[in-house]
Amino acid sequence: MKNCRLFITVLTFIWLSAYPFKELCAENQLVKQWAVFEVEMKASIEGNPFDVELFGTFQHEDTTFRCRGFYDGNNSFKVRFMPSLSGEWKFKIESANKNLNKRTGQFTCVPNSKKQHGIVQVRDTFHFGYSDGTPFFPIGTTSYVWNLQGDSLAQLTLNTLGTSPFNKIRMCVFPKDYDWNKNEPETYPFQGNPPNQWDFSKFNPAYFQTLEKRILQLHKLGIQADLILFHPYDFDERWGFHEMETSTDIRYLKYIVARLSAYSNVWWSMANEYDLMKAKTDSIWDEYFQVIQKEDPYHHLLSIHNGPKWYDHSKPWISHLSIQHQNLKEVVDFRDKYQKPIIIDECGYEGDIPWVWGNLTAQELVHRFWLGYSRGCYVTHGETYLDSLDILWWSKGGKLHGESVKRIEFLKEIIENGPSEGINPPTNGYWHKRGGSFKEPDYYLYYLGNTQPAYLVLELPDKFTYSAEIIDTWEMTTTKLKGTYTGKCKVVLPGKDRLTLIMRRVKQN
Amino acid sequence: MKNCRLFITVLTFIWLSAYPFKELCAENQLVKQWAVFEVEMKASIEGNPFDVELFGTFQHEDTTFRCRGFYDGNNSFKVRFMPSLSGEWKFKIESANKNLNKRTGQFTCVPNSKKQHGIVQVRDTFHFGYSDGTPFFPIGTTSYVWNLQGDSLAQLTLNTLGTSPFNKIRMCVFPKDYDWNKNEPETYPFQGNPPNQWDFSKFNPAYFQTLEKRILQLHKLGIQADLILFHPYDFDERWGFHEMETSTDIRYLKYIVARLSAYSNVWWSMANEYDLMKAKTDSIWDEYFQVIQKEDPYHHLLSIHNGPKWYDHSKPWISHLSIQHQNLKEVVDFRDKYQKPIIIDECGYEGDIPWVWGNLTAQELVHRFWLGYSRGCYVTHGETYLDSLDILWWSKGGKLHGESVKRIEFLKEIIENGPSEGINPPTNGYWHKRGGSFKEPDYYLYYLGNTQPAYLVLELPDKFTYSAEIIDTWEMTTTKLKGTYTGKCKVVLPGKDRLTLIMRRVKQN
Repeated sequence: MKNCRLFITVLTFIWLSAYPFKELCAENQLVKQWAVFEVEMKASIEGNPFDVELFGTFQHEDTTFRCRGFYDGNNSFKVRFMPSLSGEWKFKIESANKNLNKRTGQFTCVPNSKKQHGIVQVRDTFHFGYSDGTPFFPIGTTSYVWNLQGDSLAQLTLNTLGTSPFNKIRMCVFPKDYDWNKNEPETYPFQGNPPNQWDFSKFNPAYFQTLEKRILQLHKLGIQADLILFHPYDFDERWGFHEMETSTDIRYLKYIVARLSAYSNVWWSMANEYDLMKAKTDSIWDEYFQVIQKEDPYHHLLSIHNGPKWYDHSKPWISHLSIQHQNLKEVVDFRDKYQKPIIIDECGYEGDIPWVWGNLTAQELVHRFWLGYSRGCYVTHGETYLDSLDILWWSKGGKLHGESVKRIEFLKEIIENGPSEGINPPTNGYWHKRGGSFKEPDYYLYYLGNTQPAYLVLELPDKFTYSAEIIDTWEMTTTKLKGTYTGKCKVVLPGKDRLTLIMRRVKQN
Repeated sequence: MKNCRLFITVLTFIWLSAYPFKELCAENQLVKQWAVFEVEMKASIEGNPFDVELFGTFQHEDTTFRCRGFYDGNNSFKVRFMPSLSGEWKFKIESANKNLNKRTGQFTCVPNSKKQHGIVQVRDTFHFGYSDGTPFFPIGTTSYVWNLQGDSLAQLTLNTLGTSPFNKIRMCVFPKDYDWNKNEPETYPFQGNPPNQWDFSKFNPAYFQTLEKRILQLHKLGIQADLILFHPYDFDERWGFHEMETSTDIRYLKYIVARLSAYSNVWWSMANEYDLMKAKTDSIWDEYFQVIQKEDPYHHLLSIHNGPKWYDHSKPWISHLSIQHQNLKEVVDFRDKYQKPIIIDECGYEGDIPWVWGNLTAQELVHRFWLGYSRGCYVTHGETYLDSLDILWWSKGGKLHGESVKRIEFLKEIIENGPSEGINPPTNGYWHKRGGSFKEPDYYLYYLGNTQPAYLVLELPDKFTYSAEIIDTWEMTTTKLKGTYTGKCKVVLPGKDRLTLIMRRVKQN
């Protein structure tokens, strides 16, 4: 059909489907809140179908969303939408291309099911929650290109994730070239062949369909896909996706946001170690952020991950800090400065590779998780144990081998058993930066890390009585102390390290 | 004799003595190199004898030293001198007071004995050595007022020090008021009574004589007295020595330098946590440093210790950084910036008190020692275990109870068995800030801390062959690896943490 005169087949049907339930939907069908509603139109056009722009406008009483559509190959144009409000929605498709223009329809959105909580957003300045109010405490892991390893290994990864505590995973759109990660992906994001024979004007829909399948698989497990849109890991210049033209980058951003923004479990991570991509200046990154802000009608979480140089996270499009940083004792400074949630998305990984960022002991990684959490922040896991087949979790997924994960699961239980609003370090005083984080006056948590005090003197409110429990963060035990505590009080401790003390309000005095 | 007309007794003898051997010396006596030579003159004067200025000029061929003398009570005026050159010395005493003026004499200085190495000075930018060329690797401890606890406890402290690895101790001139340190000293540095009934124009010689006795006791053990001249620890305003007038401070500085600068094992630490003494501005501290520079003819090491705010250590009078800092991974930055030796004189103490700086585990303190040493710096010990009699080593001395000291002794053996010039991190590349420190091309040390690599790939010189040894810093074992290594080579490791790898040159290829 290429290079022939404009010729359009007007299709006699519209597909309407609501993911992730994989059902085809007729108009007027019931769609679940925060599921993906998709309008599909078949049309064979002359020229590059990826150049065709189309938009859907979705209206619910006074609320309107405008969503970009995209070409998905095989003469199929799609517009996806995630309804956030229950009730009746009308939609209209518009395009400069006449035969994709003026399609209209309607559907009914039914309220939130238990499985659908909406998207994760910032709440209470430093924390996260779903659209429906359910708290979200990020317990992330890292597996940069698990999604590009083929179905068999991906299924093993999903099985591992299904029995893990993780509710977020950092993963890349583009393939990765790195130590222990030298295999080619099965397909490529653009049409053409490596190296450097790409037609950047034409995406490869199959590549993105696989990505969507992975995101839906994660969704079924309740896991957020912290999707890394750019990364520098192509040091051997195998593909060149890290140094495309700005116009190509922007075209790609519009395409991926059009495809994926209706998936409730997507987070946008603009880049991994963005500062290692020397060709892109801060003003280029600023422009890319603004593209996403404009294109994503739902305003998914949006961040950028650093190498040695930090991006300016005070810029308004940054929803939360997604940082690489090793010294977890300093994270209160970042809270104080940016007044945004802090996720330490890379603090070193449990493993035994020769690189210093990938050979932490399990003890050290667990310690860093607690250091971060007890300072009102969240920490992300990764694992890099050498493997005879070069299947390292941090890159390809597979199985987990380390000792940190079950302690992270134990921490997750502590978090979920704590205040639903999250905890915060006090804004000043002794515990401001020393591992004390509270939800006053109900809950006081002190992580004691590598210290071993014989006792602590706490200054709790006089008005209430508190119970005390000692958490051994490595042994994963919880020991209730006898007695109760109030006001200025001395709490005698076992005098060993890696303990957390929790004081919980039990009654009013 | 007070308040009567000027009346001077010209004494018929001069005391000349060479400390630390406590012998009285006649003129022409043999004095050992770097020992204390003292001229004593008895004179009863009208008015305040502490107002009398006297100076000794000591000449050896073309070399001349001018030393301030001081009043030591009991009608005794003294000038002390530390001869640095062997051979014949002449001296002359001068004073505006006629009867202390124009005394002359001579003595012979005999060369360095094995026990006398001279004073410790900076060498090779980042390290230390004695005057006679013997290297000095600071392995310090902290016992702020052990010297003010009376002879019995002081002797116990000295016994402990004598069997410890420590060759430097941080200690204060003035008494200290702090948690677990509430006892009065036996005497006071000024005449008068607490609180605030001091005659700041009159020192109490007995107080300083006790200090000198302690410094000589340390000298016999080969321990440097890192003498803290001011500190803020008088929060209950029991004595007020932390907020005297500037003129009183300067008078005190001149007096103590006159008394002590001839003691070879004295280092001047201008203040502990200087920034907690809010009344003194940086320009006042600058002035005090310049007083010491002018008054001390030998230029003993001169530093200042910080709380949250750092002094500007680039100022020329600062010989080395004596800092409080907890993150030992950052110390290469301080080397790079200041180009001076770095001693982390406070990084937290092993102990179990409730304050976070005083309840590190032994593991953590030992880890910090190695983190510092493997980055070309030196770290200082302290111990704060609660005690039924409130005798905590860090404040009063006594006994040591912790588990870190024997590991610090083990580290000291490793250091002394390494290059006499010390080791330095490379100025760039992977190991710059990651715990690799070298004396190229002879010796390469890598401290692996909380990491557990299965192997390392090193890039050693092709020209030489190296042996490899694994140090377990906690278990205190040294294991020689089989085989030899050269050029780019893989060294297989046991895959546990707290290890140090040392590559030692064994031959040329």
